[in-house]
This record gives sequence, C-alpha cells and structure tokens, in this order.
Amino acid sequence: MKVAIVMGSDSDFPVIKKSIGILKMFGVDYEVHVISAHRTPQRAEQFASGAEANGIGVIIGAAGKAAHLAGVLAAFTPLPVIGLPIKSSTMDGLDSLLSMVQMPKGIPVATVAIDGAENAALLAVQMLSLADKDLRQKLHDYKKRMADEVAKKDAEIKLEVEKL
Amino acid sequence: MKVAIVMGSDSDFPVIKKSIGILKMFGVDYEVHVISAHRTPQRAEQFASGAEANGIGVIIGAAGKAAHLAGVLAAFTPLPVIGLPIKSSTMDGLDSLLSMVQMPKGIPVATVAIDGAENAALLAVQMLSLADKDLRQKLHDYKKRMADEVAKKDAEIKLEVEKL
Amino acid sequence: MKVAIVMGSDSDFPVIKKSIGILKMFGVDYEVHVISAHRTPQRAEQFASGAEANGIGVIIGAAGKAAHLAGVLAAFTPLPVIGLPIKSSTMDGLDSLLSMVQMPKGIPVATVAIDGAENAALLAVQMLSLADKDLRQKLHDYKKRMADEVAKKDAEIKLEVEKL
Amino acid sequence: MKVAIVMGSDSDFPVIKKSIGILKMFGVDYEVHVISAHRTPQRAEQFASGAEANGIGVIIGAAGKAAHLAGVLAAFTPLPVIGLPIKSSTMDGLDSLLSMVQMPKGIPVATVAIDGAENAALLAVQMLSLADKDLRQKLHDYKKRMADEVAKKDAEIKLEVEKL
Amino acid sequence: MKVAIVMGSDSDFPVIKKSIGILKMFGVDYEVHVISAHRTPQRAEQFASGAEANGIGVIIGAAGKAAHLAGVLAAFTPLPVIGLPIKSSTMDGLDSLLSMVQMPKGIPVATVAIDGAENAALLAVQMLSLADKDLRQKLHDYKKRMADEVAKKDAEIKLEVEKL
Amino acid sequence: MKVAIVMGSDSDFPVIKKSIGILKMFGVDYEVHVISAHRTPQRAEQFASGAEANGIGVIIGAAGKAAHLAGVLAAFTPLPVIGLPIKSSTMDGLDSLLSMVQMPKGIPVATVAIDGAENAALLAVQMLSLADKDLRQKLHDYKKRMADEVAKKDAEIKLEVEKL
Amino acid sequence: MKVAIVMGSDSDFPVIKKSIGILKMFGVDYEVHVISAHRTPQRAEQFASGAEANGIGVIIGAAGKAAHLAGVLAAFTPLPVIGLPIKSSTMDGLDSLLSMVQMPKGIPVATVAIDGAENAALLAVQMLSLADKDLRQKLHDYKKRMADEVAKKDAEIKLEVEKL
Amino acid sequence: MKVAIVMGSDSDFPVIKKSIGILKMFGVDYEVHVISAHRTPQRAEQFASGAEANGIGVIIGAAGKAAHLAGVLAAFTPLPVIGLPIKSSTMDGLDSLLSMVQMPKGIPVATVAIDGAENAALLAVQMLSLADKDLRQKLHDYKKRMADEVAKKDAEIKLEVEKL
Repeated sequence: MKVAIVMGSDSDFPVIKKSIGILKMFGVDYEVHVISAHRTPQRAEQFASGAEANGIGVIIGAAGKAAHLAGVLAAFTPLPVIGLPIKSSTMDGLDSLLSMVQMPKGIPVATVAIDGAENAALLAVQMLSLADKDLRQKLHDYKKRMADEVAKKDAEIKLEVEKL
Repeated sequence: MKVAIVMGSDSDFPVIKKSIGILKMFGVDYEVHVISAHRTPQRAEQFASGAEANGIGVIIGAAGKAAHLAGVLAAFTPLPVIGLPIKSSTMDGLDSLLSMVQMPKGIPVATVAIDGAENAALLAVQMLSLADKDLRQKLHDYKKRMADEVAKKDAEIKLEVEKL
Repeated sequence: MKVAIVMGSDSDFPVIKKSIGILKMFGVDYEVHVISAHRTPQRAEQFASGAEANGIGVIIGAAGKAAHLAGVLAAFTPLPVIGLPIKSSTMDGLDSLLSMVQMPKGIPVATVAIDGAENAALLAVQMLSLADKDLRQKLHDYKKRMADEVAKKDAEIKLEVEKL
Repeated sequence: MKVAIVMGSDSDFPVIKKSIGILKMFGVDYEVHVISAHRTPQRAEQFASGAEANGIGVIIGAAGKAAHLAGVLAAFTPLPVIGLPIKSSTMDGLDSLLSMVQMPKGIPVATVAIDGAENAALLAVQMLSLADKDLRQKLHDYKKRMADEVAKKDAEIKLEVEKL
Repeated sequence: MKVAIVMGSDSDFPVIKKSIGILKMFGVDYEVHVISAHRTPQRAEQFASGAEANGIGVIIGAAGKAAHLAGVLAAFTPLPVIGLPIKSSTMDGLDSLLSMVQMPKGIPVATVAIDGAENAALLAVQMLSLADKDLRQKLHDYKKRMADEVAKKDAEIKLEVEKL
Repeated sequence: MKVAIVMGSDSDFPVIKKSIGILKMFGVDYEVHVISAHRTPQRAEQFASGAEANGIGVIIGAAGKAAHLAGVLAAFTPLPVIGLPIKSSTMDGLDSLLSMVQMPKGIPVATVAIDGAENAALLAVQMLSLADKDLRQKLHDYKKRMADEVAKKDAEIKLEVEKL
Repeated sequence: MKVAIVMGSDSDFPVIKKSIGILKMFGVDYEVHVISAHRTPQRAEQFASGAEANGIGVIIGAAGKAAHLAGVLAAFTPLPVIGLPIKSSTMDGLDSLLSMVQMPKGIPVATVAIDGAENAALLAVQMLSLADKDLRQKLHDYKKRMADEVAKKDAEIKLEVEKL
Repeated sequence: MKVAIVMGSDSDFPVIKKSIGILKMFGVDYEVHVISAHRTPQRAEQFASGAEANGIGVIIGAAGKAAHLAGVLAAFTPLPVIGLPIKSSTMDGLDSLLSMVQMPKGIPVATVAIDGAENAALLAVQMLSLADKDLRQKLHDYKKRMADEVAKKDAEIKLEVEKL
C-alpha cells in the first residue's frame, strides 16, 4: 500500500519534502500530488474516490489558511486521512490547524502539528504497520535511534556546559 | 434570482430562520437545503454546479466547527457565496470564522459575523439589488427604519434614565 | 458599474495593488481612494453617501488595526461593502479581521481573508456579474485557468519529486 | 462639564447602569444616549461634533462586537473618548476590546476592561477632576473607602477561615 | 486487533461513551482504561509498552487541560495513537488541543476535534480497516448511511421551511 | 500641569520617543522616568503618591509582558493613568494589553493600542485640554492637519494608480 | 514556616478553600488575607515586606482579570511567590494567566493552572519540603494515594463499560 | 542541594544558558541534561525518580511546542518542578505555555514566562533559599542591585530626554 501526499499549493513543497524524506527512510511507496480543494475540486473528488482502488493506504493532506483539503479528501474515501496544517503568511498556522482538526462527526482528519511534516509521514507509517510487520520493526528501530540521538546530544551539551 | 441558503447540519436551522425572516421581509425568493460538505460531498457539487442554471443568484453557506461548506460550494460556482459561521459547542465560533474567511486566492467567501444570520441575508439582498432597483429602494427604506428604531430606543432609555 | 477601492491609509497601497490587478484583468472600471474613517470622517460619509449616485456598484474597504473603515462606509450606503482586513504591525491581522467581520445586525460587511486583496476584488467581480453576463463568463474562464495552473504545478512538482 | 454616555444598543443598558451609579455617587452631571455608529451614523456625527459646545467634557462610548462606536465619536471631537467594550453573545468580548483599543495614530480611545462600566465612569471623573478640585478630593475619599472595604472583607474572610 | 481507549480521568467517561458506541457499531473489540499520565505514570508506561503484545492495534488517548496522556503513551509504543482533546472547565479545550497536536518531531499524535469522541473511534476503525476488508466495507456503508441521513434531514427541513 | 511618562524598562525608550514628539508638538510640559513596578516598587509608590503634588496632571505608564506598571501607579494616585502596552519579544503584545486593560473595579487604566505611543500622548493632551482652552484649540488644529494629510495622500495615490 | 494565601478579592474565596484543604491535609500552617494590589497597595507592600520576618515561607497570590497581585507581592519579598490565576467573568482566565506568568526578568511568579487552587497549595508544600523531611514523606504518600485512587476509578469504569 | 536543568532538545540550549548564568551568579550547584519526554521516556522516568536521592532540590524542565517535559518529570518526583516554556517556530510559545501551566490537580508545575530562563533559575534559587540563609541574603542583595540598575537607567534616559 502506498502513501499519497496531496498538497494544496506547490508553495507547500519545501515542507512536504520532509514527509517524503521519512517515507523514503522507511522504504514506503508514495506518490505526490498538487490538488486544490477549491481550484480543482473535481480533481480532488476523482483522486480521493479512486485512492482505495489505486493501492493507496493512507492520504496526507497538507494545506494552509482555510485548509479544507484534508477534509474534502476525507469526504470521498474511507481511507484514513492525515491533516498537515501549514503555517502561511498570517495567523501563525492557527487558522489551518482549526480548519483541519475541528472536523464534524463522521469524517475524521488525523491532524498533526503545524508544519509537522515528518510526523505526518511517521503517522502514515504507523498506520501502514498495522498490516506490515517489517514496517513495525522499522518503527521500533527508529524509536531506538531517536533515543540514541538524544543521549548523544545530552553528552555533547554536558561538554559544552562544562566549558561555561 | 433566488437566494439559496445551505446549512451544513439541520441543527443550524434555528439560526437560519433569522436569515429567512430577512429574505421574506424583502420579498426575495429563496430555497433552503441541508447539504454537508463532508457527508454529502457529491450533493454539494451537484447543487453548486447547477445553482447558476437553476436561477440562483447568491448562495449562503452556514456551518460550524471546521466550516468547509461555503468554500466547497464556492469551488463549484462563480456565484458569490456568503459564509455564515455558526457558533457550535466549543471555541465560540472562532474555528468556523477562520475556516470560512481565510480562503485561498481565487475562491472568495464573503464572510459575515459569527451567528450573523440576518446580515448574511441582508448582504445577499444588497448583492441582488445590483440588478434590481426595487430591492435597492427597499434597502434604503430598511436603513431608514433601523435609524428610526434606534431613535425610539434612545427616547425609551432616556425615560428609564430619568427614573434612576 | 464601477468598483471603488477605499484604503484607510496609503501604507495599504502595496496590498491594494493586487486588487487592482484583478479588476484590470476582468476589465472592470474602478476608482481608488485614501479615506480614513477616523481622520477624514466627513469625507467617508460624503463618499459613501454619494457612491450609488456616482455609478459605483461595490465598495471595497481595506484597513488595519481597529479597521472601522468598511463598517463606517456601509453605514452610509445600501451598496454591498467588502471588508479587506490588513495585517499591520501587531496581532497578525486578527484585530482587523474581528473589527470588520463582527458587524452588528443590519449593516453587513462581506469580509475576506487577512491581506486577501485578490479575493476582495474577485468577490466584487462576482457581485457585479449578477447584472453582467460577460463578467460571469469571464469568471467561468478564470476558474478554468486556475484549474489549469494547478494541473501544471502538479506536473512540475511530480518531476521534482522524481529527482529526490 | 457633563459626561455623556453613549451606548450602541439599548441592550447595553444593564451594564451602563453601573456607570451611571458611579457618576451619581460623585455628583457629576451626565446624559445618556442610544446612538448606533452604523444604524444612525449622522446622529453619531451630530452628537460628537456638538458635544464640546453642549458642555460635555468626556464621552463614554459603550458597544459590543465590532465596537466602532467610540472610535467613530472620537473622529468628530477633540474631547477625550472612553471606550467601554461590551461582552456580547460570542468571542467573550475580545472582538469589542480589539475593535476599540487598536485605534490608529491620531485618534485615541481610552479603553477600559470588558464590561468595566464602573471604571469607565471613574476614568471620566478622574479626567474631569483635572479642572475640579472638589472632584479630586472625592476621588481621594473614594480610594480611602475602597481600602476600608477591602480591610473589612479581610476581617470577614479571616473569621470564615477560622471556622474551616 | 483491539482498540484501547485510555482516559486521563473518569470524568471523561461521558465523552468516551460516544467512542465506545462507534466501536460497538463497527463490531470492533475494545478495552477501556483510566490511566493518568501524571498520577499513574508507571501504569501508563506499562500499558503502552505492552499494548502491541496485548493485541492492541490502535490507542485512543483522551484528556483535558495539559493533555499529555496521548503523547506519553505514544512515547512507549510504535502503534498509532489518536489524541482526543477534552474540553474541561476553562479555555474551551484549546489548551488540550494544543497540548496534544503540537507534538515534537518523531512522536506523532493523530489529533481529532475537541470532544470529537465519535471521530476518534472512526479514525481508529479506518486505521484497522487497512488490514481488515470487512471493516473497510462497513466504512463504505457508514458513509452511505450518513449521506442518507443528511438527505432525510434535508427533506424534513424543507417541510419546516414551507410552514414558515 | 505636566504629563509624566513612566516606562518599565529603558528598552521601551524608542517607542516612548514618539509620545514625547507629540507632547513637544503641543507644547505640553513633560517628565520622563524609568521605574519598574517590580524592580523598584518603592520608587513607583513614591512617584505616584507624589505626582499630584508635583504638578503632574496625567501619567502615561508604558510596559511590556505582564505590564503591571500602569495599574500599580494608578493604585497610588487619583490622577488619570494612561496605559501603553508595549509589544515585547513574544505574544505580539497581547499579554501587555490584557494586563493593562483588564483592571478591576475601582482602579481604571485608560489603555491605548499596542505600541500606540502617539495616541497615549494625544490622549494625555485631550485630558489636559479639559482645563486648557489653548490646548483644545491646538487639538482642533491637529485634527484639521491630519485630514489635510490624508487628502494629500489621497491625491498622491490617485496619481500612482493612474500609472498602473 | 507558614504558607500565606493572599486573595485579591473576597469573591475568590470559594476557589481558595481548595488550597486551604490541601494545606490542612498536609498539616502545614497557613494564614489567609484579602489584599488588593490596587485598592490596598500599601497593605500589599507592608504584608510582603514583612512576610519573611513573620515566619512565612511561601506566598500564594490569587487574583483574576489583570491579576497583578502575585507580581506586586513578589516585588517586595525574596520569598517564592506562587501565582494562582482566577477565572473571572470574561476571557476564561486567559487574562489572569498572562498577567501572572509573563513576569519580567528578575521577579518570577510560579504560576499554576487557571483556578488550580489545589496545585498552588501542593506546590507550596513541595517548596517547604525542601527544608522538612516529614513533609517530603507526606508528598510521597500523597502521590501513592493519588495513584491508588486512579486505579480504583479504573476498576469502576471497567465495570461500567461491561454494562454498556 | 543542586538544581537540575533538563531541556527537551539541545536546540533549547541558547535559552538555557541564561538560567545557568543566574545559578552561577548565586553559587548554586547545578547539572544540565538533554532528556526528551517522548524520545527518551525511560530516561525521563529514571532521572526524575532518582533526583531526590541524587541531591537535587529543584528541577527546571524547559521545552517547546507540546511541552510535556516538566509535567512528565513532575509525575515521578515530589520535588518542585519549574516549567520553562520555550518559544519555538510557531504559535509564539502559547502552545508550550498552556501545555505546561494547565496541569491537572495533584501534579503542579511552577510555570514562568515564555523564554523566561533567568526567572526559572531565580525561582529555583528562591525555593532553595527556604533552607539556606546565605542564599536568601544573596536574593536580598540581588533585588537591591536590580533596583540600583533601574535607577541608573532612569538617570541615563533622563539625560537622553534632555537632548531631544
């Protein structure tokens, strides 16, 4: 099963690259689309309606401002849809966050932090790991590596502190 | 030309009644729909795509929480779409307001105050009055009546103040 | 019918230029004014009271901070007034947005996104298209072009993704 | 010199009564008006323009939602204008507060707390006391009484605490 | 695979019942726990560390105020963790929402709307459906039923509108 | 009567200079102090308690973050105290604004816009003009000059618009 | 060493009772005062300046709205001061929270949750336990009891879940 | 007794250095750790559980975004825990502040201002001074020096004002 990353505007691509990096690291197949819920609504419907048949397991919808994209995609598919609110030129991303997370009963969007591109991808991997033991093992390994990195940083900072 | 009022949930009806009251007062034709952008997305597309052909001049989209409805309708029609953010159980309507007003470039939603049902209808009447002189005259009369009402209230309060 | 763009301060002009660009693209006549609701209140009244007689169909009021301008203009005219909240030096435009959108019953202001200058103009065009078939057709064409642009961006991003 | 209290809607009267109570206590002359910045804008101009000549020293403008009233009055008079933001049905008064306090350079509004009706009146008394020694003395006395009241409450609470 | 619902306080139970109702409707096994991230941290670790081995596929963490629960559980397991922010006595749930959704890189929490108990459960079902075709079919049926319900409400409201 | 400007920190001086500029323009005597409500509380008490006797008519208190300064000064004097909330490194000045404006019953602070240094001074001048006819005339003149400036900007922008 | 609880208004007493309950449970001596930072500023100074000499170890300052009390007390004493923001009639306590927590460099206030009266007292106990082994042991016991209570609630809820 | 400073990420170190500077100035022993509540949860438990035995008197937990760190440490120790919310890339630190300060009943976190690193350390010193008379004296001296500095700044600004 693939992960589909859909961004509402090509200007979101610098953030999206971090999601792609995570998916590559986990060896998960992905596809990337620019689809606007408002400027290309038929394309949004077509994509989301066909996602299940096209081998997609999880959809990540990334958008800023009145970030309807993830909700609009979720309307057309029973697949889990992850919402990635993008911080755009004003309101510090709070508008995007509320537009994504406050979905009405019946159509959830699994929302992650503002600009939390890595976590959107990691959440997709966690979901796929429900049907993929190898992926689960990779998540265990990833958690281990994260802990090791923090321990390393701890040691480095302790050295810097000594110099103060 | 008619005004179409679309509410995202039948629970918005008590607020919507105030919009209807204004339209009746101005003698403007209207139709009322319950259409969910997320639960009945095809219906939303079908309605909005056909609105122009069906004699609708202005659409009012009323919704709470992640209030995508007005934006989704606007995606499918060149008609002006008025967004009426509804205050639901939490966040005091701020979520609805931001979801409606912060639309991306290209697809405006003409947003009014939270629970501002009368103003949504008045704005629709103002728009229709661009092609309807009688309606414009009625708006002048309405403004006059409002001023008279305030003057009457002013007199009443002055009496009450004297009694203090 | 013309669109009148009124800005509260000449410092809003860089944002306003984007509104003008849209009106030019649609071939809509416009006029531009600097009128302060607070520093030139009589001028505001004079302008708004005379707007209808002067062939204006829609007014766009752009202002920052305690953005009273659009509401003050709306008080003196039955024409639809579009509010364009400007992000000024603090509060990220939230003050302007709330000052504009939370209008009391009777005097709506059709509010668009913070700094949403293009959408303010597009909304004006949508309103004028209620009495102008050519303008309506241009809006259909504009929607088509927007969709094509997104499709083009989609293709470009897909090429960039392949290179990753 | 009188204090003029102007409320944007008669529904603000219960809050305004507390302002009146303070003015009565200090023996300051006052007048009360219902004037809407948006529904009776000419009346607002007429009142504010004439305030100075009519023996008014300070104006209190009380309004909710997009609370333009105080700013609109301030546009027409060099008198100090006190803004009293009213908490209306949504946003907890934050919209009124920002609409009042964030005034542009040149036209200040002296804003007090949301629903802070007593303080609006006290501030007016403080201002008038700049030209009225008796009033100043009364303010000293009032401060003294407030301190005594707190001391009394302190004693009462200490008794209650002992019973716990 | 089971869904584990963990609430931070038994006072969250009335909200949680709605999650349980959805899981029952879909025939998904579940277990319910009261575990406090702060009052029973070892229990939180023990539960989350063992969840995978205990046949749990998805965890729902529900909490109010400084809602650390979902993040703390996610720290100990590679399973997807859904965050359900609960509206408690102040701040309208905004504190819970931000505490849950703004997770740092590496440990996502799939956050749903404030008090969005049904959606938390539906999201869990969507995730489980990645490995369960029957569940996927039930989600398609559920979407269909929701659309039918909205259509029914639409018809009912239209009748009520006629009576106005 | 003089205006006393009190800033909580010398880092507020760049903002305060704009207040001074206004006072100079109006020929109002002033004095400037750095007094911290928290670091020099006795100095704050001493200054505020003696202000009346020292020929001060109005106090401006400028501070950022938990901006207690204006409220603390107001506690010790019956003079009107103007609060000038300073935008410091975080929260965009909202913390300062709320700390200043939300004063309890009995002790008003006349709050102006965040970083609204000119308006703080203008408000002080307006207050002093209650007992100074010349100052009142200067305020009328100032209002006139502001209107002229806006008219000039209007003409300039109209020229720029023609070039577009 | 005693804990002094100071409330800004006797209306805060219902919240304060919960702090007292905790102090009683831990057997810590306490005294309770009503002192207003604004209405009785000299009393505030007198109390805080003398606190250390009067055997007080920790001060809890509880206040609502522009909650200057804790900061004002902290200005006059090197003792740790705990800030308890009270939710008053508007703004949901956000004003009190920011007024308390955003203290400038040099004068910290140890702020707890809005209306978090028990935690204010517990924090005081934790501080006192730095010099009191018995108190530290009681804190260990309290933590243990809290965990037991959660476990008991967990068992109760599990029974209720079975009945669903 | 030592102060332990724990930061959630090494990127918090530039802020933390200011805390260290204060502790050095007061001659208080300290240790510094990088521990992530989410990436190294076992390390967090191990550290906090052992803190008391390891001679630590006060813990400072510094973190950004969903800043669970201080709360998670407080769950495992009866020592007072100070929360230092860090302003990270979005939301201006409001997310961190609410995540830290809104702790549930039973587990307080003594929260200081966003990025208030010096105050976090000063609060720790105040706490330790409950059992250390020398430290208390140093705090008195520090308060004195702060007042002197403000007086010096006052004199400097007065000179600058004269030059205006």
